[in-house]
Amino acid sequence: MEFRVIKSPSKGTIDILMKRLGTDVNNTLSCVDAIGLVQGRMIDMICAADIAEKAVGVTVADIRGSCPQNMIMIAIFGDTASVESAILEIKCNLEKEKAIC
Amino acid sequence: MEFRVIKSPSKGTIDILMKRLGTDVNNTLSCVDAIGLVQGRMIDMICAADIAEKAVGVTVADIRGSCPQNMIMIAIFGDTASVESAILEIKCNLEKEKAIC
Amino acid sequence: MEFRVIKSPSKGTIDILMKRLGTDVNNTLSCVDAIGLVQGRMIDMICAADIAEKAVGVTVADIRGSCPQNMIMIAIFGDTASVESAILEIKCNLEKEKAIC
Amino acid sequence: MEFRVIKSPSKGTIDILMKRLGTDVNNTLSCVDAIGLVQGRMIDMICAADIAEKAVGVTVADIRGSCPQNMIMIAIFGDTASVESAILEIKCNLEKEKAIC
Amino acid sequence: MEFRVIKSPSKGTIDILMKRLGTDVNNTLSCVDAIGLVQGRMIDMICAADIAEKAVGVTVADIRGSCPQNMIMIAIFGDTASVESAILEIKCNLEKEKAIC
Amino acid sequence: MEFRVIKSPSKGTIDILMKRLGTDVNNTLSCVDAIGLVQGRMIDMICAADIAEKAVGVTVADIRGSCPQNMIMIAIFGDTASVESAILEIKCNLEKEKAIC
Repeated sequence: MEFRVIKSPSKGTIDILMKRLGTDVNNTLSCVDAIGLVQGRMIDMICAADIAEKAVGVTVADIRGSCPQNMIMIAIFGDTASVESAILEIKCNLEKEKAIC
Repeated sequence: MEFRVIKSPSKGTIDILMKRLGTDVNNTLSCVDAIGLVQGRMIDMICAADIAEKAVGVTVADIRGSCPQNMIMIAIFGDTASVESAILEIKCNLEKEKAIC
Repeated sequence: MEFRVIKSPSKGTIDILMKRLGTDVNNTLSCVDAIGLVQGRMIDMICAADIAEKAVGVTVADIRGSCPQNMIMIAIFGDTASVESAILEIKCNLEKEKAIC
Repeated sequence: MEFRVIKSPSKGTIDILMKRLGTDVNNTLSCVDAIGLVQGRMIDMICAADIAEKAVGVTVADIRGSCPQNMIMIAIFGDTASVESAILEIKCNLEKEKAIC
Repeated sequence: MEFRVIKSPSKGTIDILMKRLGTDVNNTLSCVDAIGLVQGRMIDMICAADIAEKAVGVTVADIRGSCPQNMIMIAIFGDTASVESAILEIKCNLEKEKAIC
Repeated sequence: MEFRVIKSPSKGTIDILMKRLGTDVNNTLSCVDAIGLVQGRMIDMICAADIAEKAVGVTVADIRGSCPQNMIMIAIFGDTASVESAILEIKCNLEKEKAIC
């Protein structure tokens, strides 16, 4: 699993993401503070989306395309602190679950 | 083969899955207790779907997309105990069959 | 090459396969005794289909999708004994040919 | 690169191939004596098709699908001796060229 | 991640790229001084696009096709010095971030 | 990166390539002396196309299909000496650039 945080993303970067994300992303995201990106296998990305969804202050979007069964990246929009805390949550939970399995 | 169980999935997570799953999934799943995810090669996933189908208290759905011959994930909906027991069943049976072959 | 036999497949499993298989599969298969699955590279699957076609008491179906040149799985329908004998035939012949080449 | 020869192919096998091959394959192939299959990387398959095209007594067909730039298999139709000799020719020439490069 | 710079690209090369790039690339690029190419995983390419977007004197374009979720290459158009400086920026930033994570 | 040169290509081979190449290939290529094939990663193929475009006496074509962002092969048409010299140029330049990076 790979993680990246883009602080103060440029307008062009948000445009690139918007075109690749599903349509139910709120337009107010165009002035977002930070974007967290998580890329991995589909089974892990669905768990990651669930964890981020339960975090506070962030909006989660998954990438859809012509091969909808291969979700390989989710984007987490919000202020920098919330995005970083959501990503930390994902890291901890998925590592923990792996340790149990 | 990879396994994950999501307990009390968020509404957003169920939405993501619903959009990626085949259309014959019952709408009553929107208030499901747990979701089991199994990802693997197509040949194993068809066997896993058969085992889960024969288990009690769960609904099985396979993911379809533009490349239908690469089924790589099935989702098992139900209460936590039933989902975990269905996944255990899959693990045991597919391991057993591998040992025989 | 991977092999699996599903005995007394559930109705849901046959449905999953039917939706992914070509249209010339006989409808009478819905009450089939066993399903043999063979997954592998396209070149081997065409040979496997030929061997199974020449076996007795089974119906062979190949999987078609949006990438028709990547046949990666064939399904062999019939009673358990015939399916297992057809799969044994495939194993022996393809191993033998490999040894010669 | 992988090679296989199917002798006296069953009608079902020819049907499977016909549906996956380009449309300019002669219908008279339905009573062909043998089928040679060659699978490999696109660059090698174009060379293999050229070598087989220059051989005597065989018809060459390449597989086309929704991803036409990934030609991964060619089929060579003809009597058993011609098919085997064309495949030998491919093996020798492509090995030879590799040794030079 | 892979990097390449094409100086004084031929008209044919710009044509090839234009056909593969998204439609919002400015037509004035047809007389561009240099093209920087960056290829990598989607998560890295979105960060790379953000870094290049914030650099001076270059235009960034991402490649779109039938599988839009797998952005594997971005092109950076501009004069040679600006393109090389943008690519250096990408190298430094993505390496740095990796070291922190 | 893989290279191959087909001398005096058969009509069938040119047909196979023509169907897979973009439409702006000149029809006069049907009586071409030699075909050079170069297969590799997209980023390298765009550089290779640029180098070949700047060479003398050859026509360059890239392969397009349903996944236009995955250009994996270019074909270089011309007389044998020009094709071989263009391929040598590609080998030298891409190796050289790799050594610098």
